[in-house]
Formats: sequence, structure tokens, C-alpha cells
Amino acid sequence: MSPAQKGAPAVDFVGVPRLTLAGAQRALAAAAETATSLGCSVVVLVADPAGDPLAMARMDGAPLFSVTAAAKKAWTAAASGTRGSDICDVFGSDPTLLHALAPKVDELMAVGGATPIAMAGGVAGAIGVSGATEEQDQQIADAGAAAVAS
Amino acid sequence: MSPAQKGAPAVDFVGVPRLTLAGAQRALAAAAETATSLGCSVVVLVADPAGDPLAMARMDGAPLFSVTAAAKKAWTAAASGTRGSDICDVFGSDPTLLHALAPKVDELMAVGGATPIAMAGGVAGAIGVSGATEEQDQQIADAGAAAVAS
Amino acid sequence: MSPAQKGAPAVDFVGVPRLTLAGAQRALAAAAETATSLGCSVVVLVADPAGDPLAMARMDGAPLFSVTAAAKKAWTAAASGTRGSDICDVFGSDPTLLHALAPKVDELMAVGGATPIAMAGGVAGAIGVSGATEEQDQQIADAGAAAVAS
Amino acid sequence: MSPAQKGAPAVDFVGVPRLTLAGAQRALAAAAETATSLGCSVVVLVADPAGDPLAMARMDGAPLFSVTAAAKKAWTAAASGTRGSDICDVFGSDPTLLHALAPKVDELMAVGGATPIAMAGGVAGAIGVSGATEEQDQQIADAGAAAVAS
Repeated sequence: MSPAQKGAPAVDFVGVPRLTLAGAQRALAAAAETATSLGCSVVVLVADPAGDPLAMARMDGAPLFSVTAAAKKAWTAAASGTRGSDICDVFGSDPTLLHALAPKVDELMAVGGATPIAMAGGVAGAIGVSGATEEQDQQIADAGAAAVAS
Repeated sequence: MSPAQKGAPAVDFVGVPRLTLAGAQRALAAAAETATSLGCSVVVLVADPAGDPLAMARMDGAPLFSVTAAAKKAWTAAASGTRGSDICDVFGSDPTLLHALAPKVDELMAVGGATPIAMAGGVAGAIGVSGATEEQDQQIADAGAAAVAS
Repeated sequence: MSPAQKGAPAVDFVGVPRLTLAGAQRALAAAAETATSLGCSVVVLVADPAGDPLAMARMDGAPLFSVTAAAKKAWTAAASGTRGSDICDVFGSDPTLLHALAPKVDELMAVGGATPIAMAGGVAGAIGVSGATEEQDQQIADAGAAAVAS
Repeated sequence: MSPAQKGAPAVDFVGVPRLTLAGAQRALAAAAETATSLGCSVVVLVADPAGDPLAMARMDGAPLFSVTAAAKKAWTAAASGTRGSDICDVFGSDPTLLHALAPKVDELMAVGGATPIAMAGGVAGAIGVSGATEEQDQQIADAGAAAVAS
């Protein structure tokens, strides 16, 4: 039992922010616009706070494997609250963690191209991008998230 | 584009309720107490609004397969916003739907023993129970949900 | 070797129609508009001729299990070239086929709510809808497909 | 046939220790208290001697991927009778084992944050922790196990 449970009445519910479909589509459109300006064809997937899909688009010419990759990147950013490029740095500097954790959590994909969409009250969703270079994927994801950040 | 999107500015975020661990543990304890009073040994799992686990307990003597069943029942109640016994009625009266949908969504388990934990703003979580009869499982799930309902 | 292969030069390549992202998004928007007019919250997924996702949207309030169901319905319509409600009739009148085939092909989901998007040269894509009644899901899928049919 | 089997009557049954739900919940509470004192939000899962879940809790703010990781860590400690940090050392110094074994046993996760709960007669259960650093996860798991060790 935690100190909070000892000293104060427990709180059974909290209010948390959640991306709507309208917000997800706004993030999707901003990401696709950025990809076009970079000359990239990517898959973009926007997820809710649990990493489940809200909206996705596969741009003409994007590789088919990016459908899965964008979904897992979005899940990872939602589940961790961390940008893909930052998780990538953590894993890159800790090979034990990389070998132990990543293959064992199927949805976990520690690579650039994902950004949580955070509000004051928590993570409201996340965006995952795949199909270009890691740096471009991350840049596109950041642009999508920025379009709906408060 | 929906009429709402045409006539009013889109809303990118909404605030939704979410069960805390303290709330999940309160529901878990109430369910276990009800199971004991009925002389049943069950597995109880309390999930967040996306159906992901917050807290679980396997009572001594509960069957091992109930670990999986309680988790999928909780997921189904969270994902549908419907009690297990009510979903069960829907499927029972529509064999086509039963044969088409249930086997294709791995987490979907349309059977008694699950209750969404609903607030004014939406589904804040769900509870799944397995190990006794369907009616008892449902009664225990309802008791757990009632302990945290507002 | 077939007679045609004996008597005529073989043709190594053919041109096939394929939905673009622009076409997929047009179908998606038409389906969502129809759902809104019916007062339904559904998941819509538009797939390419191989049944792989091109675009999807989960409307606010749609059940979570519809994410999986809409994807499998779209795959089934693309893979079979048949509307979901028609496949459903076939399976319903042939229980042997239902029991033999459906459990063995994980993506195959024989239920209303899916429409192939056909052109003169073949199936160019498909649309899957889940979240309302089977009849409504099929009506919404048909409306989406009609928006891009030539 | 071993010498022992030749020289003495065979023993068909043995008594083995097994954690109860009460014991699992005591270990869970001790682990959560330690996590709180360290300022960490983690997932804790306590398993039986077969590595199957008895009790779990996801603390508010713990990452979602820790639900899976804590379960696999507990399984690994139960299945091997070895603390996660010790297994980690074994694997780290033997890359062949790491590459050969870990990917082939899905539940096997060789990383810090897991402790078997051992009695005189054998392993009675195990505890897995995920969400903080490897060292903190291991410290929290050890504290949970210590609360029930005899």
C-alpha cells in the first residue's frame, strides 16, 4: 500500500485527454503534406492513447511493409510517451535492453519515426511514420504531432 | 466530411474518464468478495478503457484457462461498452454474426462475465470474470463494477 | 499446358486497375458521410486489390473491435471480388464451407459490410465497414464504393 | 534408467511449494511500496511455479509495454529459478546462447527485474517488474520476493 493510499482517500478515476478522429485527421494531413514537401512516400498512422489506430493513410509509392511499421511505431510512442528517435538512442546505448525487450513485446518498435501527441493531462495519442529514412520519418511524425499540439 | 465538420470548428481533443489503479483494485476486491460469498474461485481482471490490464487476481482453485478468459472478457466489455451477458444475447440470436465476427477478432469473447465501468463521459474501464458459471461470473463482474461506479 | 498457351504467344504482363490514396480517401469520406447521416459510428477501411490497407478512419464512438473487423472485411471483399452480404449468403447456405474455410484463412470474414471497388479491368480495391448493424455496415460500404466507381 | 531408479522404489508423487493468492498479493504490495519509495511507476506481476499469473498491478503512469514485459520476466524467473539480473549476466557473456535460445522461447526474457520466490522444496512462484531502469526493476522484484520468502 502506497503512502498516498494510507494518508488520503484513493481516487478511483481521473480525466485524461484523448485525440478525436478530427484531430487524428488533422495530424495525418500535416504529416502527409510534410512528406510531400520532402519528396517522400510514407505510411502515416495516428493512434489513440492506448496505441490503437484512429486514422491511417498509405501514400502512393510507399512500401507495403510500412503499413505494419507505422502502426507499431505509433503504438510504441503512445505506450512509452517517448519519441521514436529518443527511444532509439536509449536502446542503441544499451544492447542488453535492446536484445531483451524489443523482440519480446511484439508491438514495440524502437526506431525513429514516431511522436507522442501530449497534452497537459497526459498522452492523448501518437503518430507513427514509415517509408523514408529514419530522420525523415521522425521529421514527418513531428510535423504531424505539431499540427494538433496545444 | 460530416455536417459537424462543415458547420463548426473541429475538436481535436476530448477529456475522457480513466480508471486508476486504486479504482481497479477496489473493483477487484469487491468482485473477489462476491465470489467468496458465492463459494466460487475465479480469475478477475480489471482493464483500462482500451481493454489493457490494470489489475488481476487468480483466486486459489480457479482454473488456469480463466486467466486468458477473464482478460478477453474485460477487453470485450471495454471495446464494446456492453455487458458480457448482453453481448451473449445478441450473438445467440444472430448465428451468422457469431460465426463471422467472434473467431476473427482474437480478443473478442462474447459470453457472460464482463461489465463495462461507465462514467458520464464514457467507458472508464471494464472488469472480466471467469471460473464459475456464466451467471455467477456475470454477477461477480457486476458487483465489482458497482463498487467503483459513480 | 492449356490450349491457349499452345496456340498463341504468352502474355507476360497485364495492366490492372489500382485505387490510389486519393481514390481511397474519397471512398472513405463518402462512407463516413453516409454513416453520419444514419447516426452510426463505424470504422471504415479502404484496401488495395491485395486487401492491404490504403486508408482508414475510426469514427468517435465506434467500438474498438471494429478496427480489426473492418480490415478483415475489406480484405475479404478484395480477395473474393464479392460483396460481404453476398458472401454471407453463400456461407449461410453452405455450412460445410463455413466450417471448413473460414477458420483456416485468418483474414477471411464472411459477413455484411464490405464491397469490392471494381473497374472494367478487375478489382481495384475494396472497402470494409464495421460498427453498426450488418445491413447498415453494408449500406455504408456500398456508398463508399459508389463514390469512386467509374 | 538412472541408478536411483534401479536401487530404490520409484516415488510417484512429491509435495511442492506453491504461492497462494494471499502470498502473491503480499509480494505485489511490497513491490509496489518499494517502487513508490523509489519514485517509480512500474507493472508488477506475480506468477505461480509454472510462470502463469496469480496477481498483477499496473501503477498509474507505468508504460503500457511493461504489461507484457513484467509477465515474461516473471515467467523466466519461475522457469529458470534464476534472478533476471543473473540470467542477464549469463546471456551477456554468452552471445551464442542469447542468439540461439531467446528468440525461440517466446516467454523467455533475459533481463533484470525478476526474482524467483524459492522455498526449501523448490520454486514456489516468481515476481516480474518492468517500467523503471533494469537495476530499479530488479531491486523492486527482490523486495517483493523478500516479503514472502520463508
